[in-house]
Amino acid sequence: MADAITPRSEDYSQWYHDVVRHARLADYSPVRGCMIVRPNGYALWENMQAGLDGMFKATGHRNAYFPIFIPQSFLAREAAHVEGFAKECAVVTHSRLKVGDDGTLDVDPESKLEENLIVRPTSETIVWDTYSKWIQSWRDLPILLNQWNNVVRWEMRTRLFLRTMEFLWQEGHTAHATRDEAMEETLRILDIYATFAEDWMAMPVIKGVKSAAERFAGADETFCIEALMQDGKALQSGTSHFLGQNFARAFNCQFQNRDNELEYVWATSWGVSTRLIGALVMVHSDDRGLVLPPKLAPTQAVIVPIYRSDEDRVAVLEAASVVESKLRASGIRVELDAREGFRPGWKFTEHEVQGVPVRLAIGPRDVANRTVELARRDGGEKQSVPVDGIVASVQEALDSVQFGLFEKALAHREANTTSVDSYDDLRGVLDDKGGFVRMHWDGTSETEARIKDETKATIRCIPLEGYEEDGVDPVSGRPSRGRVLYARAY
Amino acid sequence: MADAITPRSEDYSQWYHDVVRHARLADYSPVRGCMIVRPNGYALWENMQAGLDGMFKATGHRNAYFPIFIPQSFLAREAAHVEGFAKECAVVTHSRLKVGDDGTLDVDPESKLEENLIVRPTSETIVWDTYSKWIQSWRDLPILLNQWNNVVRWEMRTRLFLRTMEFLWQEGHTAHATRDEAMEETLRILDIYATFAEDWMAMPVIKGVKSAAERFAGADETFCIEALMQDGKALQSGTSHFLGQNFARAFNCQFQNRDNELEYVWATSWGVSTRLIGALVMVHSDDRGLVLPPKLAPTQAVIVPIYRSDEDRVAVLEAASVVESKLRASGIRVELDAREGFRPGWKFTEHEVQGVPVRLAIGPRDVANRTVELARRDGGEKQSVPVDGIVASVQEALDSVQFGLFEKALAHREANTTSVDSYDDLRGVLDDKGGFVRMHWDGTSETEARIKDETKATIRCIPLEGYEEDGVDPVSGRPSRGRVLYARAY
Repeated sequence: MADAITPRSEDYSQWYHDVVRHARLADYSPVRGCMIVRPNGYALWENMQAGLDGMFKATGHRNAYFPIFIPQSFLAREAAHVEGFAKECAVVTHSRLKVGDDGTLDVDPESKLEENLIVRPTSETIVWDTYSKWIQSWRDLPILLNQWNNVVRWEMRTRLFLRTMEFLWQEGHTAHATRDEAMEETLRILDIYATFAEDWMAMPVIKGVKSAAERFAGADETFCIEALMQDGKALQSGTSHFLGQNFARAFNCQFQNRDNELEYVWATSWGVSTRLIGALVMVHSDDRGLVLPPKLAPTQAVIVPIYRSDEDRVAVLEAASVVESKLRASGIRVELDAREGFRPGWKFTEHEVQGVPVRLAIGPRDVANRTVELARRDGGEKQSVPVDGIVASVQEALDSVQFGLFEKALAHREANTTSVDSYDDLRGVLDDKGGFVRMHWDGTSETEARIKDETKATIRCIPLEGYEEDGVDPVSGRPSRGRVLYARAY
Repeated sequence: MADAITPRSEDYSQWYHDVVRHARLADYSPVRGCMIVRPNGYALWENMQAGLDGMFKATGHRNAYFPIFIPQSFLAREAAHVEGFAKECAVVTHSRLKVGDDGTLDVDPESKLEENLIVRPTSETIVWDTYSKWIQSWRDLPILLNQWNNVVRWEMRTRLFLRTMEFLWQEGHTAHATRDEAMEETLRILDIYATFAEDWMAMPVIKGVKSAAERFAGADETFCIEALMQDGKALQSGTSHFLGQNFARAFNCQFQNRDNELEYVWATSWGVSTRLIGALVMVHSDDRGLVLPPKLAPTQAVIVPIYRSDEDRVAVLEAASVVESKLRASGIRVELDAREGFRPGWKFTEHEVQGVPVRLAIGPRDVANRTVELARRDGGEKQSVPVDGIVASVQEALDSVQFGLFEKALAHREANTTSVDSYDDLRGVLDDKGGFVRMHWDGTSETEARIKDETKATIRCIPLEGYEEDGVDPVSGRPSRGRVLYARAY
C-alpha cells in the first residue's frame, strides 16, 4: 500500500478509510455491505471483548448463545419493535441449491420454507420466547445473560466498522422480578460501557437518555454513551435499554411473584459492537495513521534493531532479545521486529501506521551504552533510556500515552461543546464549528423533528448529569426543563 | 427438572439427551434444527476456545473474521466442493419485510436480490476470493488465519451439539508457497487437535487420514481425529484438510515464487466445533449426569456448607469462605454454594448432575477439626482433609480426576477395538460389541461402499500409526497394504 494517507484537513472521510486500510484493520468483501475484519482489527476486537467480558462477569453475567435465525412471525409480535426496526433484513426463504438443466447452480424451488427465517438483526424476540419457557417463579430470576455474536441489518452504504450490513457485537438480555431491579441493571451496564470507553479506549463519553424518537423500538427508555469524533460529529457508542414489560407481554412471559401473583417479567437489553473500532480510529488517529490506547493495542511496544555490519547484527539482536524478554516477562505485549530485508525506517513507518504506542530502537551505540531509544506514537521527544530500567520506562510511557490520549480527546470535546440560546446560533455552530451543542428543548417530538429536518442534527441524548436548568426552547418558544445535546452524528 | 436421567443401559440416546438437558448445557429452539447453548454449555465452549486458541496463537496463527454471506456463484467455482458439499443450505433471497394489506408481516417481493446469498456452510470460497487479492508474491506467504464463528448446514434431524443446523466452530485457512509447507501445516494442526482432545478433554483419539469417499469436498487429503463413545460408536472430532491448489485454481490465486515464476498457492483448512461438547458428554458422563475433565470444567470445585443452627451457620460460612479464598487465590475455579433454602443433599445432586469434578462439604464438626470433606465426581471414597493443606488436596484430586478420566476412556477404547480377518467377524463385532474394528482394506471405493451399504459401518480413517501390514481384504479377496478402522459413527 504505497499511496499516502489523505490528511484529515483535506478529506476526513477519505482519511478514515485510508487509516483503516493502511493499518490493515479491515477490508471490503465481495458481498456488498459486509466487511472482512483483518487480524489487526480482530486483535483489537479480542482485547475489547476481554475488557468488557471481564466487567460483565464481575457483575454476575454469563455468556450463552441463541440461534442466528428468527422465525418471521416472531418479529411481528412486539408492535413497536417491528414497526421501528426490523424491516430491512436478510430473509432466508429456501433451504437447498440444485444444479439446473443448463448446468448452473440455483435455488431449488421445491425447498421453499413454510415460514421464512430472518437472520437476526438483534435477539430480543427469540430470547423472550425462550425465557417464557425458563421462567415460572421469582426463584428463576434474575437471568443475566450476554452473547457475543454476529448480526445483520440490511445496509448498502458501507463504511468499514461504522456502518456495515453484518457486524460483530455483544447483546445482553436480562430478566428481573421488579421494575427497580431492571432499571438498576440498565444503569449498571451504562456505567460499564462508560468505564470501558474512558478507561480502556481513552474516549470520553457523555451518558444520557434518548428522546422518544431515538429510542430503541420496543424499549421504554434507551440510555446511551455518546462520543465526539475529531471532525465534530457525534458517535453513539453503546446503548442500554430498559424494556419494561413489553417483550414479556409480547411473548407471554409471566412469573409467580413473592406474593403468589402472576406478573410480567421486567427486561433489559444492551449492546456494543465493532463500531467501537471505528470510534477508536476516529477519536485518536492522526495523519500518519492509527493511534491506539495501550490498554487495547495488540502490540504495546515494538523493538526495531538497527545495524549495518554482520558483527553489529549479532550484538544488536542479542541486546534486543534481552529487552524483549524483560518486557514480555512483565506482561507487556511486545514484538521484536527482526525481519530481514526491510530498512529500519520502513519498519518505523509501518509500526507508526499500525498505531503501536511505544517504539524501541537499538543500534550498536545503544549496545555499547546499554541504552535503548524510546519513541512514543503520540509524539514528544525521543528518549535514550537505560536497559536496566527498561520495564519501568516502557510501563511509564504506556501509562502516559493512555492518559494523554484521554486528556487530549477530553480537551477536544470540551473545546467543541457549545451552549447556545437561539436557533440561529445552533445552525451557526453546527455549520461552522460542529461538535456538541447544548440547547434548551421543550421535550416535544415536533420540535426535535423540525430541527433534524432543517439542520440534520439530532438530539444525541438528554445528559444524565448537568441537565436540569429551567429555560425556554428557542425554536418553539415553549418552556424547557434543561439543555439537551444536539449534534450531527454518524 | 424433577424427572430422572434415563440409564445408559436402557436407552443410550435418551440418556445423552437427559444429561445435556439436566446439566443445562443446551436447549431446543423454536427454530427447528437450531439449539440454544445455555450458560453451562457456553462456559465449556469458552474454556475449549481458550485452550485451542492458545495453541493456534503459539504456532503463529492470528484470528480474523470473514462475512457470514457467500455469493451463490462462489459455491459453484470449485466443482468437487459444490458437488459434494454445499447443496443443503440456508438461502437468502430477499432483503426486506413489509406489512401487507391484510396487516401481516411478509417478505417484500420487490426486495428480491440480484444474486442469492448463502449463509456460510464453511468459508473456503470467500477466503480464497480474498486471498487472491492479498497475495502477489512469496513475501506475502504464509498466511495463517483462523476464525471463530457460526456456520449453517441445513439439517432437520437435530441432536443437541452432535447434529444441528447451526453450530459454532473455528475454521483455519492457511496459504503457503510450497506443497511441503502446506502438508506440514495440515499435520501440525492435526497434532494440536489430538493434543487438545487428549490433554484437555481427556479423550483418547486416533489420528488418521480419510478415504476418498469420506474426504472433505475440495480437499486432496482429509486428516482427522476419531474418538470412541461409550456406546461403541465413533465420533469424528476434528478435521485438518490438505487442499492442494484446488481453491487457488478455482479463485485464480497465484503468486510469484522465489524463481519469479507464477504458481498457484497451496492451502489448508481445518476445524473443530461445538460437536466436541457432545463428544465430551458421551465419553465421560454416567447415569448420574455430566462428568467433566477438570481442565475444562467451568467450576472445578464447589463448596457446600452444612449447618442446622444459626450459630453453626456463621462459623461454617466463615470457614467455607476461608477455603474459597485459598482455592481462588491459587487459580482453582471454585464456587461457594451458600444459597439459602436448599438442602445440602439437593445441592450435592445438582453439582453432581452438572459434573463439578470436586465437591467440598464443611459442617460444624469440620470447623471444630479444621477439616473439609472432599468427594470426587468420578467416584472413590470421600476423604476428610485438613484445611491447612486444602489447595494441595484439591489440586491433587483435580489432577487425579483428569488423569483417571483419560485412563478410563483409553481402557474402554482398547477393550472395544477388535482386529478381524473375515467379513462375518466384522459384521458380528459391529452387531454384538461395537467399537472400532481393524480390518484389511483393498483401498477401493467399491469395497468401502459395499460394506457401508451392508453394515452401516464406514472407514473412520486409515490410522497414521500402526497401519502398514501386508494382507488380504476379506471382502474383495484383493491384496491390502494395512488394516483400516471401521466403525458405526455419529
